[in-house]
Amino acid sequence: MRILFLGDVMGRAGRRAIVERLAPLRARLKADLVVVNAENASGGRGCTAGHAQLLLESGADCLTLGDHAFDQKDMMAFIDREPRIVRPLNFAKEAPGRGSTIVSDARGRKLLVTQALGQVFMSRPYDDPFSALDAVLRAHPPGGMIQACLVDIHAEATSEKMATGHFCDGRASAVVGTHTHVPTSDAQILSRGTAYQSDAGMCGDYDSVIGMDKAEPLRRFITGMGRDRFTPAEGEATLSGTLVVTDDRTGLATAVEPVRDGGRLSQTHPA
Amino acid sequence: MRILFLGDVMGRAGRRAIVERLAPLRARLKADLVVVNAENASGGRGCTAGHAQLLLESGADCLTLGDHAFDQKDMMAFIDREPRIVRPLNFAKEAPGRGSTIVSDARGRKLLVTQALGQVFMSRPYDDPFSALDAVLRAHPPGGMIQACLVDIHAEATSEKMATGHFCDGRASAVVGTHTHVPTSDAQILSRGTAYQSDAGMCGDYDSVIGMDKAEPLRRFITGMGRDRFTPAEGEATLSGTLVVTDDRTGLATAVEPVRDGGRLSQTHPA
Amino acid sequence: MRILFLGDVMGRAGRRAIVERLAPLRARLKADLVVVNAENASGGRGCTAGHAQLLLESGADCLTLGDHAFDQKDMMAFIDREPRIVRPLNFAKEAPGRGSTIVSDARGRKLLVTQALGQVFMSRPYDDPFSALDAVLRAHPPGGMIQACLVDIHAEATSEKMATGHFCDGRASAVVGTHTHVPTSDAQILSRGTAYQSDAGMCGDYDSVIGMDKAEPLRRFITGMGRDRFTPAEGEATLSGTLVVTDDRTGLATAVEPVRDGGRLSQTHPA
Amino acid sequence: MRILFLGDVMGRAGRRAIVERLAPLRARLKADLVVVNAENASGGRGCTAGHAQLLLESGADCLTLGDHAFDQKDMMAFIDREPRIVRPLNFAKEAPGRGSTIVSDARGRKLLVTQALGQVFMSRPYDDPFSALDAVLRAHPPGGMIQACLVDIHAEATSEKMATGHFCDGRASAVVGTHTHVPTSDAQILSRGTAYQSDAGMCGDYDSVIGMDKAEPLRRFITGMGRDRFTPAEGEATLSGTLVVTDDRTGLATAVEPVRDGGRLSQTHPA
Ligand SMILES: [Fe+2]
Ligand SMILES: [Fe+2]
Ligand SMILES: [Fe+2]
Ligand SMILES: [Fe+2]
Ligand SMILES: [Fe+2]
Ligand SMILES: [Fe+2]
Ligand SMILES: [Fe+2]
Ligand SMILES: [Fe+2]
Repeated sequence: MRILFLGDVMGRAGRRAIVERLAPLRARLKADLVVVNAENASGGRGCTAGHAQLLLESGADCLTLGDHAFDQKDMMAFIDREPRIVRPLNFAKEAPGRGSTIVSDARGRKLLVTQALGQVFMSRPYDDPFSALDAVLRAHPPGGMIQACLVDIHAEATSEKMATGHFCDGRASAVVGTHTHVPTSDAQILSRGTAYQSDAGMCGDYDSVIGMDKAEPLRRFITGMGRDRFTPAEGEATLSGTLVVTDDRTGLATAVEPVRDGGRLSQTHPA
Repeated sequence: MRILFLGDVMGRAGRRAIVERLAPLRARLKADLVVVNAENASGGRGCTAGHAQLLLESGADCLTLGDHAFDQKDMMAFIDREPRIVRPLNFAKEAPGRGSTIVSDARGRKLLVTQALGQVFMSRPYDDPFSALDAVLRAHPPGGMIQACLVDIHAEATSEKMATGHFCDGRASAVVGTHTHVPTSDAQILSRGTAYQSDAGMCGDYDSVIGMDKAEPLRRFITGMGRDRFTPAEGEATLSGTLVVTDDRTGLATAVEPVRDGGRLSQTHPA
Repeated sequence: MRILFLGDVMGRAGRRAIVERLAPLRARLKADLVVVNAENASGGRGCTAGHAQLLLESGADCLTLGDHAFDQKDMMAFIDREPRIVRPLNFAKEAPGRGSTIVSDARGRKLLVTQALGQVFMSRPYDDPFSALDAVLRAHPPGGMIQACLVDIHAEATSEKMATGHFCDGRASAVVGTHTHVPTSDAQILSRGTAYQSDAGMCGDYDSVIGMDKAEPLRRFITGMGRDRFTPAEGEATLSGTLVVTDDRTGLATAVEPVRDGGRLSQTHPA
Repeated sequence: MRILFLGDVMGRAGRRAIVERLAPLRARLKADLVVVNAENASGGRGCTAGHAQLLLESGADCLTLGDHAFDQKDMMAFIDREPRIVRPLNFAKEAPGRGSTIVSDARGRKLLVTQALGQVFMSRPYDDPFSALDAVLRAHPPGGMIQACLVDIHAEATSEKMATGHFCDGRASAVVGTHTHVPTSDAQILSRGTAYQSDAGMCGDYDSVIGMDKAEPLRRFITGMGRDRFTPAEGEATLSGTLVVTDDRTGLATAVEPVRDGGRLSQTHPA
């Protein structure tokens, strides 16, 4: 299966890039399924029900969220009605929605999508992601009822992300990070067959501070005092992510390559 | 000028890669000057005087350090005798050594090298890096006594790194990050001419947890309890960094491209 | 029931004060049961099996631990053999030992002792303490099989500690904090009958930096660089804690007062 | 000189207690000068110009602030016009106002008041407080132009606060902490004559979570999701702080005792 995973969609610039360019990108890459991280789709903070529907209608088969999962309050009700949206497994015991879901491609092949939040350097504390992922992966062994499994590790620290990759190695098709909004160039297949990339990067304007207009973040770093709200930068977004190719029989990866389409970053489209 | 910057050298595997492969890499890339981050060269924690000399003899013209600058105690005396080593500008008021230095290439062209520590998510608190960099950059305007200026922003948070890039934009030839040990693929020239890449990546074994052998970090993440010391992974290292090409007259960048040589990561060598 | 709870025993000075002064203090306060936090009893880091036995022989009926629970490796085996030692409920899923225990006084009255780690500002991440405490308190309602219940909330942030107090209010006899090593003077009975004090303070030398000899912590704060190991201060310790009086029928508190005995702090012994 | 220092005034309940009870408390304690921490006087976040004036008119001779210094934007202009307000020495290089000030009592005796922010566990990074305090204390030696000196160490970690006490020992009349909103019972005179207390506590309602109404903080701790804004609790406030008595000739302390007046906490008024 060919799985395209795109990182954090950042505000209007990110949504516009998805609406206008995801369909041709999907066709070009012959992706069977597309998973998109939507935690910053609405003004950079969370994702409204309306924007979630827009992303799903534009070619995403599944959305993941993150620490900003419920910043837009209507997501709290919407997520229980839309099985194609995943929030972190370890967000909070009382959180609505689900921490994993299964989506099918046009040929009926099944992909398990799950997400965990890291604990290191995060703004709020979360429960242990390793035991949470362990339970999900044990329930869905590769080569069983599902053909592939994608883990979105939404975390800050590269140490925790790499540890998650090794922890899931041989048990998931791919472990790809999100949250830092910067793509990494460490895509590789780990020793037991799991594809890994520390961060998918964001779908947003890279002439910015992690997708936000530069002025206010710079003011706060330099003066220690804020003045205005953060607003997403409005320049053309780069669609940034990873293409993972899996073996339907083993559920393991046979290839992994970064994808960068449009905007300021160097462009790369896997063959 | 063609400046090669390589990220955190990680233990024996990283040192060996520098000793064996930096000279041919330097020749292949026609680099005029080579700067190497050495903060993890000795067992992953700091850099001894002996290892610093080894790196300098192997083709590095200048070394930067980081939060681990003085983990090896003999560096505290050695740094005052070796002007080619830079420690962070904002390490501590009482720290030995210098926060910036000037090195010259074979044709006598001068490169200012400086380093600042980020404040966000770092293990210890440090003073404001923005005002520290401001003072250094004001004292060395581009197109003046120096031909180029490289800023190593040693930080965890992508937001702080990108803000540092914009803060130095038009005033430095390049701002390149270190510390996360994972290379990023966001190399670009910012709007006023400064080359930028969020992280150079490490010179280390990428079958690891940020360069450390996987077993002990995984044990600590999974059980919450440690048993052994961390030791660097011993597999073949990828030399990971950035090539920046600058205009000697303006001091600004004309090209920036990632470099990855050897080891597990996908290989890339700028033309 | 009259329950004496003493905070973190700090190194040799703390142990000596327990050995020499706990018995007369216990008699003076007519305490029916004594619970002592032992996480720093051995060199300031953890508690050996031998030191745990010493504290139990000196008049403690039950020991709690903390984030340093297993810094002394022999505790990992010992804790499974000694039912009077409690480690945090939410230390790690794979930790040995128990997160709550029941001890009986001379008249057979039962006290449940439990401990949770806070998440805010802690050196490592831990799972949610609120749901962990909820499960224990639901299983042991006041006025049921036990006569009283003491919660040791081992945490840094006063906000999280006060929230824990209110969360347990009416369900525990007392919620008393540990970990900061400084006693607080906010002892009160909350609105539904639970005694509360943000921190019991340490049993250690208060001419120190949280019980450690001043020189090395000061060096690190001032220079950013360490030189020696931390070692506990050796001056006379203050036994610092809280006396809680409970109603055996309701399990709620009828009085709560701080206790400070010996050493440098102002002395207070409840009537 | 008899100096009364009161901790963080928390919202309307705190202001009301100052307006109604500071004058009689001042008279009862025969305080020559009163310093009040005002960083939470307005809705719990910062202090407006109007509220600062109200506190000064109600009997405070000097106000200190904290990390919330400029949460109310009109303070940014007001602080430059009102020499009796001190913001942290190390807030940010570009912050308005002053980090120390001198106020005089009715007999013309001078008190230097200064404040530094801790770095450990704070929500934002700040520059090194130790070197900042060192400069101020060197410029104002005890027994010189001033009769006394009060240092407000606004910090979270007890280790950093105790280290600040020892760092200033013999050079300031008193080092008293703020920020945690919980009074500590470790008041003592350090070995070289400086009075010390880790935290003055808040002037606010202690049936709360650090002065805030309990409901919303509890919701966030338990569910991980917020719903409403934080608002200060409205029950009767305890005026909480410290009385320091100094020797005008040496500038050192001869006595230090906690003060708690009104509200829920146990009451204490030094003789
Ligand atoms: Fe994000
Ligand atoms: Fe995020
Ligand atoms: Fe490093
Ligand atoms: Fe580092
Ligand atoms: Fe402790
Ligand atoms: Fe602790
Ligand atoms: Fe405050
Ligand atoms: Fe504060």
